[in-house]
Amino acid sequence: MLSKSQIKLITSLKQKKFRLQHGLFVVEGVKTIKELLLSKWELHALYTTESFNIDAKDEVIISELDLKRISFLTTPNKALAIFKVPKEKYIDYNGLIVALDAVRDPGNLGTIIRLCDWFGIKNLICSKETVDCFNPKVIQATMGSITRVNISYVDLVTFLKDVRVPVYGAFMEGEKVYTKELKQEGVLVMGNEANGVSKEVEAIINEKVSIPRFGVLQATESLNVATATAILLSEFKRR
Amino acid sequence: MLSKSQIKLITSLKQKKFRLQHGLFVVEGVKTIKELLLSKWELHALYTTESFNIDAKDEVIISELDLKRISFLTTPNKALAIFKVPKEKYIDYNGLIVALDAVRDPGNLGTIIRLCDWFGIKNLICSKETVDCFNPKVIQATMGSITRVNISYVDLVTFLKDVRVPVYGAFMEGEKVYTKELKQEGVLVMGNEANGVSKEVEAIINEKVSIPRFGVLQATESLNVATATAILLSEFKRR
Repeated sequence: MLSKSQIKLITSLKQKKFRLQHGLFVVEGVKTIKELLLSKWELHALYTTESFNIDAKDEVIISELDLKRISFLTTPNKALAIFKVPKEKYIDYNGLIVALDAVRDPGNLGTIIRLCDWFGIKNLICSKETVDCFNPKVIQATMGSITRVNISYVDLVTFLKDVRVPVYGAFMEGEKVYTKELKQEGVLVMGNEANGVSKEVEAIINEKVSIPRFGVLQATESLNVATATAILLSEFKRR
Repeated sequence: MLSKSQIKLITSLKQKKFRLQHGLFVVEGVKTIKELLLSKWELHALYTTESFNIDAKDEVIISELDLKRISFLTTPNKALAIFKVPKEKYIDYNGLIVALDAVRDPGNLGTIIRLCDWFGIKNLICSKETVDCFNPKVIQATMGSITRVNISYVDLVTFLKDVRVPVYGAFMEGEKVYTKELKQEGVLVMGNEANGVSKEVEAIINEKVSIPRFGVLQATESLNVATATAILLSEFKRR
């Protein structure tokens, strides 16, 4: 059985305000929870319809009905866990860093975190306007990758001004990425879904890159930010 | 004012069965509707809170409340249009063809359609198990690209057996795409989100390709199908 205060805490964690206040976030689904249990991230509580057979004093077996009551999903997936928000690590300036300027869609951020993990990007920098990475929809989309990428929320303009490596940015009118020289140390800035990179950030970018369009003139005016990140990371890494 | 029968028709179009029965589908949002009006696709009815100033006998000005009643979105976007499902065109075997083996997620299919448009892929082949491209969530994610890509639903095994160009497929254990020779005429098969390419289809594929992973050993086990398609299309097209 779940207590009223447990239910209240869990449902409050949908909101960033309460995630910050409690230092906790929600993870759903057996597969993603198992990935997080394998990491060094700290479990706070596990509510599950089937035991995970882990040595966890915090495991609580609940009914399907109770899970439905606390789940953020329309189709709950057997278990819901609460983890502690880990401490932010120092940013490692070796290798390529990805920076996001106000990416708002949780699915996009989740996909980009998964891409960083795939391409061995250790650091992901998010502007304060970027969606919170502990948003349940982001966690869902990362498929566990979130524990392997160091994510920092910063004032992006201040951060980029301090950086001593080339700052690349994705722009429609940039140099074609396929033929451009790309350094292995640098920051790659990706912009907001609707407005791209902001003017303030654009002013600091010294290397504008673009993905050439091969379609007819009337083709789509832009790529989704997650697919554009996929193509650009592939270009940086394949060389 | 909307009649009961209009509301009934519109809401029925959420389901593939009724889209097939009526030969109609729903498009929401001013921007996407405008893109479709610019194409040769035929408008059946337009319900909007503000006039599009088009010479359309089918334009009906409705209240925000009525729009809320018929919209499939939690936040309706000013207008909802019904278009006629266009006739399938013949498949053009010149150039690269993308084929999907049971891609189920509407957002993924929508993103892949947008990618095809960007990279000048004229033909997208979907197995019968792939989500319907006239699903409202797919249309939403294509951002209008759907009118510029010829999409056909086929028995994928039969289709691939008949094809006279190389058949490429994305597999974890495939040859590294960065160094592999890629023909400009061929079919690129992308698999299901959870299970990849099916055994029956795998048997027909003669060229397995993979996207190398650069992360550490414990990194994410796979890429999302839409981001993998982005990277592979970029590789085919940049050469």
